[in-house]
Amino acid sequence: MEITINKTQNPKAKPDMSNLPFGKYFSDHMFIMDYDEGKGWHDPRIVPYGPIELDPSAMVFHYAQEVFEGLKAYKSSDGHVRLFRPDKNFARLNVSNERLAIPQIDEALCLEGLKKLVELDKEWIPEQEGTSLYIRPFIIATDPFLGVKPSESYKFMIICSPSGLYYPEGLAPVKIYVEDSYVRAVRGGTGFTKTGGNYAGSIRAQVVAHEKGYSQVLWLDGVEQKYIEEVGSMNIFFKINGEVVTPALNGSILSGITRMSTIELLKSWGVPVSERKISIQEVSDAYDNGTLEECFGTGTAAIISPVGELSWDDKVMLINDNKIGEITQRIFDTITNIQTGKEEDKMGWVLKVD
Amino acid sequence: MEITINKTQNPKAKPDMSNLPFGKYFSDHMFIMDYDEGKGWHDPRIVPYGPIELDPSAMVFHYAQEVFEGLKAYKSSDGHVRLFRPDKNFARLNVSNERLAIPQIDEALCLEGLKKLVELDKEWIPEQEGTSLYIRPFIIATDPFLGVKPSESYKFMIICSPSGLYYPEGLAPVKIYVEDSYVRAVRGGTGFTKTGGNYAGSIRAQVVAHEKGYSQVLWLDGVEQKYIEEVGSMNIFFKINGEVVTPALNGSILSGITRMSTIELLKSWGVPVSERKISIQEVSDAYDNGTLEECFGTGTAAIISPVGELSWDDKVMLINDNKIGEITQRIFDTITNIQTGKEEDKMGWVLKVD
Ligand SMILES: Cc1ncc(COP(=O)(O)O)c(C=O)c1O
Ligand SMILES: Cc1ncc(COP(=O)(O)O)c(C=O)c1O
Repeated sequence: MEITINKTQNPKAKPDMSNLPFGKYFSDHMFIMDYDEGKGWHDPRIVPYGPIELDPSAMVFHYAQEVFEGLKAYKSSDGHVRLFRPDKNFARLNVSNERLAIPQIDEALCLEGLKKLVELDKEWIPEQEGTSLYIRPFIIATDPFLGVKPSESYKFMIICSPSGLYYPEGLAPVKIYVEDSYVRAVRGGTGFTKTGGNYAGSIRAQVVAHEKGYSQVLWLDGVEQKYIEEVGSMNIFFKINGEVVTPALNGSILSGITRMSTIELLKSWGVPVSERKISIQEVSDAYDNGTLEECFGTGTAAIISPVGELSWDDKVMLINDNKIGEITQRIFDTITNIQTGKEEDKMGWVLKVD
Repeated sequence: MEITINKTQNPKAKPDMSNLPFGKYFSDHMFIMDYDEGKGWHDPRIVPYGPIELDPSAMVFHYAQEVFEGLKAYKSSDGHVRLFRPDKNFARLNVSNERLAIPQIDEALCLEGLKKLVELDKEWIPEQEGTSLYIRPFIIATDPFLGVKPSESYKFMIICSPSGLYYPEGLAPVKIYVEDSYVRAVRGGTGFTKTGGNYAGSIRAQVVAHEKGYSQVLWLDGVEQKYIEEVGSMNIFFKINGEVVTPALNGSILSGITRMSTIELLKSWGVPVSERKISIQEVSDAYDNGTLEECFGTGTAAIISPVGELSWDDKVMLINDNKIGEITQRIFDTITNIQTGKEEDKMGWVLKVD
């Protein structure tokens, strides 16, 4: 299928690139592709960024049949555009599609569309430290029909937002607390996918967290409410007694691409790392006996976010004196240096666009 | 606040009212009201039915911050328009709003808007047996922003669909099966609300059910996967040894208005009815010892749907010889007669619009 390009006649004024919020401004173009039952995905095209029109009965508004991805483009100091493991995002989008009964996309075609889009809008990639072009592929169900069943028409889109830091704190350690009343996901549900409903259900807990002065909540498993799952939009890692531990992929947490990269890096460095069940009690015990050395979240938006304070009921665990840990810092430096081209990409993670 | 009315200049052709599908055609007008942070809900208005324009970054597309309701309008033989317990729907919408971090609506104002809308579009209320005007109030988050937090702008809308039967089977008993791998909801989650994510996650299981020849799945609880919760868009009742039993409202099932009405009717008739935990094992045991007398689902769309066949693993339970049971029939007749005005509304459930 050929991707057509319709360039904007009215390029927008760029925002102040030295003081960018996250996810608020959007570039000049977007990628769209439609799906109709019997026809499959068709008409991949790049068009000027702008509103979309939908019937008020469109299924996405009522039954949230929708999935999304998030990745970033960087510009290296020599001016080249770099994407970080974009193939993993499109593969994961198809995992989400399968669970949400949305038709599979052609991953290679979508990646091609993304490359063309980023190339076209490359002036929208900010260059200051900590900034990037945040890329959001997503699919929505568009059938104008009320009734719970898979939609027969969809829109796949990619939009791009020049963005600053996700957490205003930056690399400063964040405070999170263990959520023990609300539940995000449970095995058999949609926790392992990137679908809107997972996030909708988490907003209320996040509001409470903010009111209490925390930046995020740490979710426990939905069955026993004992085992650690993940943070709002990050996977979570603990360094306990020299070993780095992260919850195993159990069907209710997202298989993060930053998580995967972190594990691969740690292995390449010979640091012991294990993916397994880990209870909040175990973390609390490690804290008590002085073996809880570091804690950090991993995710595309924040990349690596050190956790300085973890609260569980009345217990406040101050981790590594509320300072970024040695391993945390090393992972952050390595990943960001590979992303921005400051360090050789030995892992083969970067896709150069131009 | 005053509700303004902008009448259509181009009334649509009506579909064949004697052969209506469910949720496919929409009436001439819709009700809209906007919310903006700092301004609250404003500009309630009735306008011609038509598409809405949203930024592709609108939060509803990504994080599914959305809630909805469903109710019906009927026309009695003397031509009056009748709504069934609409106050309960708007009260429940506010329960959903609270959980989804969406601002509360003014229930009285929305009911007023609904009445005006239905009055204006009353020619769209079909009159054949089994048909009605299905009404869908809903709210979507419209902030053009990527990042998980409560939206600062929303749209509340009401659209109306002249509809036939929800299940093509009508009052013929349906076949359902007990879902024991996928999970719909868990305590601490959003199961008690009408939010899109609950339905998105259920579509895959429903596709499998259809492929196997069943019309719906019966969900078990998310924690132990032992206790009965509800069906796709219905609450469930069992008559066991003379007593009618339905799962208690436990935080993970919807508090159905048809369920509530059914319980109130049974009590008024002196039929023993209990809301409690009921396991699928208990139902299976009752089947084995011959005390499982009737089983039916309750919901606005289908009203009452007798269950003729219930499958659990390899066990197939044929209920009441696959015929509609006595109590099931009596509830169906009473509710529909009250709705359509054929029977005196002793319970005070009907709101006459005109
Ligand atoms: C729920 C959740 N967990 C984890 C992550 C981290 O995944 P990734 O590293 O692929 O960005 C994200 C963000 O994408 C997320 O939304
Ligand atoms: C999940 C679910 N359960 C139960 C019901 C029945 O509720 P009500 O009787 O209010 O229509 C519905 C439909 O509204 C539903 O979607």
